Amino acid sequence: MGEDQLRQLLEQVREGAVDIDAAVSRMRHLPYEDLGFAKIDHHRALRHGMPEVIFAKGKTPDQVMQIAGRLLERAPNVLITRADRDAAACVLEKLPCGEYFPLSGAIRFWGDKTLRGKGTIAVVCAGTSDMPVAEEAQLTAEVMGNEVEAICDVGVAGIHRLIAHSAQLMEARVVVVCAGMEGALPSAVGGMVSCPVIAVPTSVGYGASFHGLAALLGMLNSCASNVTVVNIDNGFGAGYVASLINRL
Amino acid sequence: MGEDQLRQLLEQVREGAVDIDAAVSRMRHLPYEDLGFAKIDHHRALRHGMPEVIFAKGKTPDQVMQIAGRLLERAPNVLITRADRDAAACVLEKLPCGEYFPLSGAIRFWGDKTLRGKGTIAVVCAGTSDMPVAEEAQLTAEVMGNEVEAICDVGVAGIHRLIAHSAQLMEARVVVVCAGMEGALPSAVGGMVSCPVIAVPTSVGYGASFHGLAALLGMLNSCASNVTVVNIDNGFGAGYVASLINRL
Amino acid sequence: MGEDQLRQLLEQVREGAVDIDAAVSRMRHLPYEDLGFAKIDHHRALRHGMPEVIFAKGKTPDQVMQIAGRLLERAPNVLITRADRDAAACVLEKLPCGEYFPLSGAIRFWGDKTLRGKGTIAVVCAGTSDMPVAEEAQLTAEVMGNEVEAICDVGVAGIHRLIAHSAQLMEARVVVVCAGMEGALPSAVGGMVSCPVIAVPTSVGYGASFHGLAALLGMLNSCASNVTVVNIDNGFGAGYVASLINRL
Amino acid sequence: MGEDQLRQLLEQVREGAVDIDAAVSRMRHLPYEDLGFAKIDHHRALRHGMPEVIFAKGKTPDQVMQIAGRLLERAPNVLITRADRDAAACVLEKLPCGEYFPLSGAIRFWGDKTLRGKGTIAVVCAGTSDMPVAEEAQLTAEVMGNEVEAICDVGVAGIHRLIAHSAQLMEARVVVVCAGMEGALPSAVGGMVSCPVIAVPTSVGYGASFHGLAALLGMLNSCASNVTVVNIDNGFGAGYVASLINRL
Amino acid sequence: MGEDQLRQLLEQVREGAVDIDAAVSRMRHLPYEDLGFAKIDHHRALRHGMPEVIFAKGKTPDQVMQIAGRLLERAPNVLITRADRDAAACVLEKLPCGEYFPLSGAIRFWGDKTLRGKGTIAVVCAGTSDMPVAEEAQLTAEVMGNEVEAICDVGVAGIHRLIAHSAQLMEARVVVVCAGMEGALPSAVGGMVSCPVIAVPTSVGYGASFHGLAALLGMLNSCASNVTVVNIDNGFGAGYVASLINRL
Amino acid sequence: MGEDQLRQLLEQVREGAVDIDAAVSRMRHLPYEDLGFAKIDHHRALRHGMPEVIFAKGKTPDQVMQIAGRLLERAPNVLITRADRDAAACVLEKLPCGEYFPLSGAIRFWGDKTLRGKGTIAVVCAGTSDMPVAEEAQLTAEVMGNEVEAICDVGVAGIHRLIAHSAQLMEARVVVVCAGMEGALPSAVGGMVSCPVIAVPTSVGYGASFHGLAALLGMLNSCASNVTVVNIDNGFGAGYVASLINRL
Amino acid sequence: MGEDQLRQLLEQVREGAVDIDAAVSRMRHLPYEDLGFAKIDHHRALRHGMPEVIFAKGKTPDQVMQIAGRLLERAPNVLITRADRDAAACVLEKLPCGEYFPLSGAIRFWGDKTLRGKGTIAVVCAGTSDMPVAEEAQLTAEVMGNEVEAICDVGVAGIHRLIAHSAQLMEARVVVVCAGMEGALPSAVGGMVSCPVIAVPTSVGYGASFHGLAALLGMLNSCASNVTVVNIDNGFGAGYVASLINRL
Amino acid sequence: MGEDQLRQLLEQVREGAVDIDAAVSRMRHLPYEDLGFAKIDHHRALRHGMPEVIFAKGKTPDQVMQIAGRLLERAPNVLITRADRDAAACVLEKLPCGEYFPLSGAIRFWGDKTLRGKGTIAVVCAGTSDMPVAEEAQLTAEVMGNEVEAICDVGVAGIHRLIAHSAQLMEARVVVVCAGMEGALPSAVGGMVSCPVIAVPTSVGYGASFHGLAALLGMLNSCASNVTVVNIDNGFGAGYVASLINRL
Repeated sequence: MGEDQLRQLLEQVREGAVDIDAAVSRMRHLPYEDLGFAKIDHHRALRHGMPEVIFAKGKTPDQVMQIAGRLLERAPNVLITRADRDAAACVLEKLPCGEYFPLSGAIRFWGDKTLRGKGTIAVVCAGTSDMPVAEEAQLTAEVMGNEVEAICDVGVAGIHRLIAHSAQLMEARVVVVCAGMEGALPSAVGGMVSCPVIAVPTSVGYGASFHGLAALLGMLNSCASNVTVVNIDNGFGAGYVASLINRL
Repeated sequence: MGEDQLRQLLEQVREGAVDIDAAVSRMRHLPYEDLGFAKIDHHRALRHGMPEVIFAKGKTPDQVMQIAGRLLERAPNVLITRADRDAAACVLEKLPCGEYFPLSGAIRFWGDKTLRGKGTIAVVCAGTSDMPVAEEAQLTAEVMGNEVEAICDVGVAGIHRLIAHSAQLMEARVVVVCAGMEGALPSAVGGMVSCPVIAVPTSVGYGASFHGLAALLGMLNSCASNVTVVNIDNGFGAGYVASLINRL
Repeated sequence: MGEDQLRQLLEQVREGAVDIDAAVSRMRHLPYEDLGFAKIDHHRALRHGMPEVIFAKGKTPDQVMQIAGRLLERAPNVLITRADRDAAACVLEKLPCGEYFPLSGAIRFWGDKTLRGKGTIAVVCAGTSDMPVAEEAQLTAEVMGNEVEAICDVGVAGIHRLIAHSAQLMEARVVVVCAGMEGALPSAVGGMVSCPVIAVPTSVGYGASFHGLAALLGMLNSCASNVTVVNIDNGFGAGYVASLINRL
Repeated sequence: MGEDQLRQLLEQVREGAVDIDAAVSRMRHLPYEDLGFAKIDHHRALRHGMPEVIFAKGKTPDQVMQIAGRLLERAPNVLITRADRDAAACVLEKLPCGEYFPLSGAIRFWGDKTLRGKGTIAVVCAGTSDMPVAEEAQLTAEVMGNEVEAICDVGVAGIHRLIAHSAQLMEARVVVVCAGMEGALPSAVGGMVSCPVIAVPTSVGYGASFHGLAALLGMLNSCASNVTVVNIDNGFGAGYVASLINRL
Repeated sequence: MGEDQLRQLLEQVREGAVDIDAAVSRMRHLPYEDLGFAKIDHHRALRHGMPEVIFAKGKTPDQVMQIAGRLLERAPNVLITRADRDAAACVLEKLPCGEYFPLSGAIRFWGDKTLRGKGTIAVVCAGTSDMPVAEEAQLTAEVMGNEVEAICDVGVAGIHRLIAHSAQLMEARVVVVCAGMEGALPSAVGGMVSCPVIAVPTSVGYGASFHGLAALLGMLNSCASNVTVVNIDNGFGAGYVASLINRL
Repeated sequence: MGEDQLRQLLEQVREGAVDIDAAVSRMRHLPYEDLGFAKIDHHRALRHGMPEVIFAKGKTPDQVMQIAGRLLERAPNVLITRADRDAAACVLEKLPCGEYFPLSGAIRFWGDKTLRGKGTIAVVCAGTSDMPVAEEAQLTAEVMGNEVEAICDVGVAGIHRLIAHSAQLMEARVVVVCAGMEGALPSAVGGMVSCPVIAVPTSVGYGASFHGLAALLGMLNSCASNVTVVNIDNGFGAGYVASLINRL
Repeated sequence: MGEDQLRQLLEQVREGAVDIDAAVSRMRHLPYEDLGFAKIDHHRALRHGMPEVIFAKGKTPDQVMQIAGRLLERAPNVLITRADRDAAACVLEKLPCGEYFPLSGAIRFWGDKTLRGKGTIAVVCAGTSDMPVAEEAQLTAEVMGNEVEAICDVGVAGIHRLIAHSAQLMEARVVVVCAGMEGALPSAVGGMVSCPVIAVPTSVGYGASFHGLAALLGMLNSCASNVTVVNIDNGFGAGYVASLINRL
Repeated sequence: MGEDQLRQLLEQVREGAVDIDAAVSRMRHLPYEDLGFAKIDHHRALRHGMPEVIFAKGKTPDQVMQIAGRLLERAPNVLITRADRDAAACVLEKLPCGEYFPLSGAIRFWGDKTLRGKGTIAVVCAGTSDMPVAEEAQLTAEVMGNEVEAICDVGVAGIHRLIAHSAQLMEARVVVVCAGMEGALPSAVGGMVSCPVIAVPTSVGYGASFHGLAALLGMLNSCASNVTVVNIDNGFGAGYVASLINRL
């Protein structure tokens, strides 16, 4: 319930059109509607000015499809993340205007392609195996109205390859860096650019990488001051925050 | 690039042999000087347009004082973090223009108070015990040219107190949230605002807080998409990134 | 105490040689019978006044069915948790009066629907993916004679949706809160109600959620004083304790 | 702000005594007052019907004393936990009606000794070293209006000593069990009683006890269904929830 | 090489039957033979007076069968642990005198049934799900020449059932206790008996049991002094050490 | 069973109304007396045939002294472990017949030096820094009536030094091995002897030894089958179990 | 440096305008080419004088085959690690000159068999189950031009078997030791030889081996000073560094 | 006992000068001598051709001094690590020819300064706070006969400063890299050089550095293949292995 609606309600109280019991009761209820298994908040889009997002993992293909259908009735842009092939098939059969990206498992409905970001977002990844996470970040940033520059396979152990991209990196307004194993890339990138760097640890690696923990700890301890961190494999979150920053 | 080469370059600028764009571009690369125990990169300030920062922990009072003295010859703003009372006494005896903040252990030299941030940065903390970390974030953001709105003691278990600050929060361009124990505050704040939220887990708590680990994990798993995280107790990092974002 | 001794005791009761108080007191101690692979304590129901419960995981479908059959001969209410489809098929073929809930894997035999709880138990879950755990809690509380109010999908990042349910929550005598990821919901609910809150961390999440560890630590560090915690995904335990409290 | 005050406000709107802008503004503000370093919510006591509590650790003696003084102006019962001798001296000099318990570090102001709990709360501890935590639980439950039965030094390895207390335990309405090392006592107690058991892992032990982690994990995995768990050494939380349950 | 053989060799040196080079070379080589992928030490049996044991996990069915065949040529008793059905089929086809125990995955060749232990070994397990580990311990102790008393499903939460077995337990010369979840049973048993107790944590449980870690830590912190611990699920190790002790 | 009942029982023994077998059997159950802060079970000595033991850490010097005094009235042998110099001073002033061992912090009252163990217990330690733990094991084994052979500073990296002690090791009836860092010594010793080996991880080391965790995990995963493990630094527990085994 | 610049440089070499020292020096910096999903640095071989290596896990069979094909056009020796049977089939169909080693999952193209190492590299493994990791180390060392001495199944618990290989070990110029479980073998080997020992923890084990963590921690805490460690199961890294050392 | 002595002994056997019992007994004993609290193996120096080393932590000043004195009677070079000021004072009073380095806590006796390494060892550290560990590595390498090039304060976030040292790094025969926090420096250095890199994680950092764990995991997961790792803060081990490699 926005301030306008609250004022409207109070005016109705003043005018006697709504009695006090009803007013109290309505003031307790914020606007959402009930789907049985999931309450959808159409106002969230309004509040954040952002597309709707569905995290598909842990939901049945049918649940994903139903929520997506409902959201698409009101939102031009919908992003589904972590959908497996079954969920993708089920969604795209009913909602064929979407596009499926099997690497990251994203399904994107991109009806409104207005550019909203003021500059470029660079999405950097350390190795081929980090690409699913980088793709999720890129798709998110794009559907939120940003131009994205993707830079792939520039690990810390080949620092010359990273330096070769320094011009691109310095032109970006925000940089997203995805890296597994030792997770050192955000520190190196952070030292090269003056803008905010969002680090995404990936679960790429084996043994003492402990499913991304090594990269996560590395990034949290970055000696570059312009680095913040999101959850392991959370390409979506990184793309989302990068988009918020790029709108400022 | 040694000092000789730098002088040569500046002479070329004076003579018009090198234009300013080219000179700035060349100066971005590499000069530093040798202090014996620590190499100081004066150009880092130039590169980031930011004050110099010294992390005092693990350095002797004398080392801290010497580095600070050196930096102050060229930089108007210097921030020293995590200085104990001995270090503060040693620094302020020689460099009396600084101010010591015992709660956070920061010493601030604030010669240039130009406002550089475009909006307000809100610094929120969950409880009284989180205030040292919040103070570090606030001092950092201020010395980097930002107006800071401090909101204290608004934990998740008293959600009405947080809501009472919603107007202030919604007006901020970036929000820094410091919280220990379960670290839930950034999620609640993240759901209330549309701007980026930088979460700082603090080591406040006992038992299964494991010195901030519980808060850190909570924040990394935030269900609010606009949250990124920095290291436990890293108020400086949060203030720094918030400042970068607020300049955009 | 063997079966002979039990008969002897009951005869003494019939003859008036032992009064009922003394008999109940003596019956609290020890009898069980041997099934080869598992000793079943029929008196546990008597002692706790509770239905029998079988944890199906780690048992073969046949073992589950046999134990269930045995228990149903004497107990009107039996709850089987964590049964996969094979176990469910095997059990329901032999014991068709049960009902299978595939989301949580529970099978419920609910012969005696007497209400025993004095008020309502609210079972709250943060997201759609937490529903299997919430369902286990709800089924448990119901089979133990309680009215349950289920509130779904009210995460901390959409605090207004939680607040919309405050009336329902405040009317409950006990609240069970199931949440994964950062596990912040119990703190927010705990701050809204004055009754005991039983927090159930769920394994929902990825990366640094570490299979529910993040939520577990968050809940143990809750800044709301009325929160206690059970094991990850232990919907049964939460429903069980909530029922005990609701009988008081 | 309670419902009465809200209705009063709406009536004032209806009557025109308060204009809409003022109403909106007042509705945004919940009642607390500002102390500079800590906001105190007098309404929390009203909401929970509970005494005020101050966690002294991480606060200066002076902060503790000031908050306590403020609270005592309106609340008859105040409990300060984890106060060291310095804080206790500072508080009791200004507020001599309190009593200091050095074992647990609690300071108790117990102006209103009304019994509010309906039955007895048993507080059990496994060994002498667990007594500080048990004392914190006992003091909390008492100041909240409960009769407490303390049972000390009844570890699992001397099961006969525990059994000797079975009558006392079975008469309790709630049981709090404090144990370090392997943390097995709550399971044994849980099997003996039919009421809720609140388990408090303590940091007592060495080596692989990992400061209470072993006990915490043990209690979370209890095979007794009537056990819930609070944070390591959180005697206060256990006493608090036990009191809530005992009022039902 | 035993002392006899060494003396023999030195005598040959003294007598000139073996020259010094040959003696040095032979003294360097201990007796084993080469199978290509695994060196088998027939002398281990001699040294320990124990049957040969093969850990099947991580070996191919064919490798298991070959090693078993080789060992059976010289050892009457061979125990294979952790064999899946494929390995069992492959082994028993070639070596049909063995017996397969699918619960624990053990295959036992028991040619020499001489009793070597002086008393009885009790093998206790907390729940039905712990039976595979208990079975491994029992089969090991039996093949090493011991009488085993198996006591099943006597968890800590039903302490009366454990007490019902106290006579059996007190008669044992060594007790092996297998328990998952909170792993409290060895403490309770340890307090009842005066003989050594060997605790085996099992991976039974879920959530915060962390695959047996909770039970392991619990047992290492046992307040009963007569408890030592082996690896999670290591029924074999417990049976082995119990047998060594029972021979003393 | 209270003191009255005990007297009654002993009178019945005197009168011949109860024979000694029955009396011993009845005395195994339950009597203790109340000291206010700690219940002392004098019958534990009778039950285990063992001296009384006090774990001094976490108790005040006065508490230690009082418990010790009480126990010495009835038990000839009392062992206090982990006593600091203050506790030792307090105890020995009142009870001068004890001996303090500052390395391990043990205080030993050794009134009855009867040999009860049938063979020798070898106590081996890997390095000089492991000696406090080894000393605790040795003192325990001695006060429990065993001959102890101490072997010091025989680490795995100098395997020849270990082998030089093989005769001593092979003659022992039980071996206790204390080692920090990688904790490999029990495996090497375990391969050399046929008797039970009790491994004690010590907290010796730094960095990735994680206060004994590395040694603990190493020992739990020992490839020698005759190894069981006790808690980190638990020399007492190892000496205790070794003594139990040596009496068999 | 793009391709154009490289051609220009080579022409200058041909024309004598740039001498070979200068050309090699300039070629050390930066050229690579774009393959879409992965940038391949042909100069890495030149820089390290080493074969090309592809880590197959996390890449599709087709990706592996394409990268391999590309590399083989210019490099005589290519090693693919961690390839499953599908990847191997796909690669060898197109590139039949390779050899597949199913135990370790390596595919080796060994066109240039020049010996480059000055001495022998010993690759030791503790048990049969460690052989996949040892094989990866051996294949790597061989393809990098070294003679390898493989020593298998010489665990710490059978120290005499290890000693039997002491001559071979002492002749090696570098030793690679692969061990799971307690990971003690590198310490024992490290004490026997004077050359560098590279320890590879393997994920062999169960329970408290925690997928190689126990072995990793053991090796990091080795009391032998000549031991360094690589990641769990990283046979390739160990073989690689051993080869670098053996070339010195 | 070397081979020569063995042959001599066997000849004495052949000649009858030593009887068989004596020979067996002497063959069991390797040459060391007994100091009561620590066995010193003079042959270790012979075997490794290295100076003697004493780890002072966990030993009393007097123990350190005694061992040092004993070793200096036969070895020209002795290195004591981790000595605090008390130990240093005690040692240097008796043995004034040593030199104390308070940063790292090393005491060095450097009688024989023969150069034994063939090239230069570079010791690199990321920040001022890593210098104690780097100093330990440098002192070790020097006392073992190597020329050391120390490069300080070249973190990954200022990659240009690292590159400025590339010539020095490429000339080294082995590189030791000490870094705390994210531990990324070894990867960057590893990509720049072709020689072996020994990575030393330091405990520098706070919060999620977990006392060096973040750096340790980062280094174990290095994407540079020429990196091996030693324990946290183990500058000595790195300097030792670097010296072994540099002698090859």
